[in-house]
Amino acid sequence: MDSNISRREQLRIIIFHTDTPAGRRFDQTLLAVILCSLIVVILDSIPAIHANYADLLAYIEWGFTAVFLAEYILRLYSSPRPLQYAFSFYGLVDLLAIVPGILAIYYSDAQYLLIVRIVRMLRIFRVLKLSPYLKQANYLLAALRGSKQKIIVFLASVSTLVIVFGTLMYVIEGPEHGFTSIPTGIYWAIVTLTTVGFGDIVPKTPLGQILSSLVMITGYSIIAVPTGIFTAELANAMRGEQLQHDCPVCAKNTHEHGAAFCSRCGNQLFPRVGEKA
Amino acid sequence: MDSNISRREQLRIIIFHTDTPAGRRFDQTLLAVILCSLIVVILDSIPAIHANYADLLAYIEWGFTAVFLAEYILRLYSSPRPLQYAFSFYGLVDLLAIVPGILAIYYSDAQYLLIVRIVRMLRIFRVLKLSPYLKQANYLLAALRGSKQKIIVFLASVSTLVIVFGTLMYVIEGPEHGFTSIPTGIYWAIVTLTTVGFGDIVPKTPLGQILSSLVMITGYSIIAVPTGIFTAELANAMRGEQLQHDCPVCAKNTHEHGAAFCSRCGNQLFPRVGEKA
Amino acid sequence: MDSNISRREQLRIIIFHTDTPAGRRFDQTLLAVILCSLIVVILDSIPAIHANYADLLAYIEWGFTAVFLAEYILRLYSSPRPLQYAFSFYGLVDLLAIVPGILAIYYSDAQYLLIVRIVRMLRIFRVLKLSPYLKQANYLLAALRGSKQKIIVFLASVSTLVIVFGTLMYVIEGPEHGFTSIPTGIYWAIVTLTTVGFGDIVPKTPLGQILSSLVMITGYSIIAVPTGIFTAELANAMRGEQLQHDCPVCAKNTHEHGAAFCSRCGNQLFPRVGEKA
Amino acid sequence: MDSNISRREQLRIIIFHTDTPAGRRFDQTLLAVILCSLIVVILDSIPAIHANYADLLAYIEWGFTAVFLAEYILRLYSSPRPLQYAFSFYGLVDLLAIVPGILAIYYSDAQYLLIVRIVRMLRIFRVLKLSPYLKQANYLLAALRGSKQKIIVFLASVSTLVIVFGTLMYVIEGPEHGFTSIPTGIYWAIVTLTTVGFGDIVPKTPLGQILSSLVMITGYSIIAVPTGIFTAELANAMRGEQLQHDCPVCAKNTHEHGAAFCSRCGNQLFPRVGEKA
Repeated sequence: MDSNISRREQLRIIIFHTDTPAGRRFDQTLLAVILCSLIVVILDSIPAIHANYADLLAYIEWGFTAVFLAEYILRLYSSPRPLQYAFSFYGLVDLLAIVPGILAIYYSDAQYLLIVRIVRMLRIFRVLKLSPYLKQANYLLAALRGSKQKIIVFLASVSTLVIVFGTLMYVIEGPEHGFTSIPTGIYWAIVTLTTVGFGDIVPKTPLGQILSSLVMITGYSIIAVPTGIFTAELANAMRGEQLQHDCPVCAKNTHEHGAAFCSRCGNQLFPRVGEKA
Repeated sequence: MDSNISRREQLRIIIFHTDTPAGRRFDQTLLAVILCSLIVVILDSIPAIHANYADLLAYIEWGFTAVFLAEYILRLYSSPRPLQYAFSFYGLVDLLAIVPGILAIYYSDAQYLLIVRIVRMLRIFRVLKLSPYLKQANYLLAALRGSKQKIIVFLASVSTLVIVFGTLMYVIEGPEHGFTSIPTGIYWAIVTLTTVGFGDIVPKTPLGQILSSLVMITGYSIIAVPTGIFTAELANAMRGEQLQHDCPVCAKNTHEHGAAFCSRCGNQLFPRVGEKA
Repeated sequence: MDSNISRREQLRIIIFHTDTPAGRRFDQTLLAVILCSLIVVILDSIPAIHANYADLLAYIEWGFTAVFLAEYILRLYSSPRPLQYAFSFYGLVDLLAIVPGILAIYYSDAQYLLIVRIVRMLRIFRVLKLSPYLKQANYLLAALRGSKQKIIVFLASVSTLVIVFGTLMYVIEGPEHGFTSIPTGIYWAIVTLTTVGFGDIVPKTPLGQILSSLVMITGYSIIAVPTGIFTAELANAMRGEQLQHDCPVCAKNTHEHGAAFCSRCGNQLFPRVGEKA
Repeated sequence: MDSNISRREQLRIIIFHTDTPAGRRFDQTLLAVILCSLIVVILDSIPAIHANYADLLAYIEWGFTAVFLAEYILRLYSSPRPLQYAFSFYGLVDLLAIVPGILAIYYSDAQYLLIVRIVRMLRIFRVLKLSPYLKQANYLLAALRGSKQKIIVFLASVSTLVIVFGTLMYVIEGPEHGFTSIPTGIYWAIVTLTTVGFGDIVPKTPLGQILSSLVMITGYSIIAVPTGIFTAELANAMRGEQLQHDCPVCAKNTHEHGAAFCSRCGNQLFPRVGEKA
């Protein structure tokens, strides 16, 4: 690295950039550390492990908190605009990854908040920036974005259905069969419509079972709706590789990547200036 | 607003039109009031809340009923043809939203009928009339309409399957394993085929488990059918069926998507610039 | 009807043809009778109804059996080739719809075999012959036929998966957690892979739960396979409206219904005899 | 068969080749034997059968092990390069199909490892080599390969979701409602997100039920993602990507599906008969 770059500048490149070997290595190490810290939180929640290794795991967790604290301070120090970083999305997430560790010293339950560190894993997309994975994620996001309005219409219809079905089941089955309130009925309707079917609350009366059958068949059929929406949009997004341009003659609007002439009518897509279209 | 419009006319515009600012604001307020009234019904069904606030919630509910009654009378008064409104779909729904509130004074169970007020929420589509959401809903409805016949064939096949499987399971497992009657068997078959699987009734005999496996694999596979139907129809609805363009020679006006030549007379649909058609 | 048609011939037209008003009415009546007879069998299986109306329902059932017996004899009598009818698919089904009713006089359990009468409902497709429903059923069947081989490959893979997973779970969890044998393990694997999830048998050991998670995620993901297969085939079948013919010049193989020229290259699809292609 | 082919060569053709009648018959017999051996292992695990026929089944199992051992030795003997075979995928699988049978003499639990013999069933694809089934499997594999990256992005998102939801549920519901540790919470989240819903662990608190509803609706909706990915890829794989045709002027050899004109030079790809290209 160039020697006339200040130490702070060097730090900034390592910490904030991913396109240098050092920056890449830093981000990869960071991801590994975050993963280890998550595993410690998860292990600590298992009674058998907690009983024997509670102290050890607590020390390790404090260690990770110290590491993340040091990293946070370094980020603040090396950032050209520390305040902007502190209030950016990643800055807040980085802070949130430390606070519960400190709180856990006083309130032991706070340690489970450490799971927010998983949000830091989003950096993984920065590490893989140059990989084709992000492009695929973009396809999926484009398909989701394209179907957003249809999905809202769909979710609104589903919400109406579960409220109506939940209330009906509450009236039909009543508290004696586990439908203790309308919200419980709505919870049951969601469990049933999504075809999860825990079985903790089940209809007992013939009328309740007939209505349940209706809910189940509805749920079984309308799963086609989000699937259809997403598939159609994804197929669109994948075709989106293509050149988006209206042919001046036939108005064909998608063309092969790099096309010079329209493949339908044979006319030039981009007439040269001075020629007539 | 123009001063020589009668008070009744003004009311009509506010209540029935959504394309004026006042009408829009009226409908938005109405939706909020309906939503609040639904929340009160739902809250009142929770035992812990009912025990402490039953009276308060009843008063609020009466208040909402009074508001809807007033609104209904205003609608009748301001409508140019009151009878036509009273017997229209929306008119009946508006009436249904009031009646249970009045009945609830005498029969407390009637209050759950208040949930029909959710049907009034359909007005939301009128408020959002100019938004792109309705267009998306139209795509979905077009896809559903296009696949109606296929879906009826599918539902008929599913009904036959669940009746046959339900009867077989009743014969195989019998009342001692929870299959107390053929309708119970059919209910179980629906629970299983739709992959809900409550687990309140489960096969115990080996033969019953083999048949169940068959039902489950069938259910798991044929979910492809409504999904496939809907996806294919939606893709159709989104693509737009055919190319609309008059053939310059024979004037055939619809062509295969992507056609370059007229399939009736063989002439080029889009003559190249500089050539004669 | 023409008077010089014999009585037997008239019967034949009524019973076997659906394209005359009388034949149509006969088939519709028959379907209604079959449906009633099914409802009686189903009602008779409900303990509360059986306790009070067993005799009445048995008499009604005997009545239906008598009606179907009479119909069967009339079919044999009016058929031009009685033996051929007796051994045809419909002939055997018609016989099967009577036999259990007669057996039920001696063995009361035999009456549930009466549910085979539902197979007679297949005639419904003959009644609706001219309706567009059959065309839609044909699309679905064409899509299923087209995807038959892919579905066999898929079912073979699923079978292998459930056998391997079922055996592993039997070894891991063992009889003390409900996995009493390998077939039980396979049954559990089917319940889990198809996302039914009754919950009658559930993994208790950590290793079993990890393997279960794998089974569930596999089942959740591979449901995409039959859906994808069917959707792609159905889209194909729906495009199949088109003219299947290779263009003699560019080999484009599907064309608009009624096309005379290829829409891609503008050449005549069917060159006149004596002209050069 | 030619008489001057050595006995060893003849064996090699029978055992390793599937395109001769003898080789085909050998492979078919082998598949049948493998299937029988699997059925014996499965039957032996059923307590009722094991109690009565344990010895008989053990003898049969030893017989199968002897047969597979003999086959393995013959393969080694007849193979032109025995070591290469021994360390090939199929060679190792063939060895693994014998070892547990020998181990089972000392450790009775080892017999369940015999289920690895199912991997030998993969040879079935060699027997069916000439059938169209393999082509269909290729379509499916091509679609899976094409969607690999999208599926990894999807599985990564699902993993993040279940870890976050599982931890939240552990914190909200706690050990007293069955959520004994974070891994248990994650297991529950997988059971729920995949819509399996065993019902062995269910949320009891209102907050837990609200979060569950969110998990269920998420699971119900995102099942659209793998389905959409696979369907879009399969449709691609089945359509065949591009038109393979040399442009008569510029020799560009792949074109948009349905192209009439070359998108590079604008000339007609398929000149009309009678015109000059």
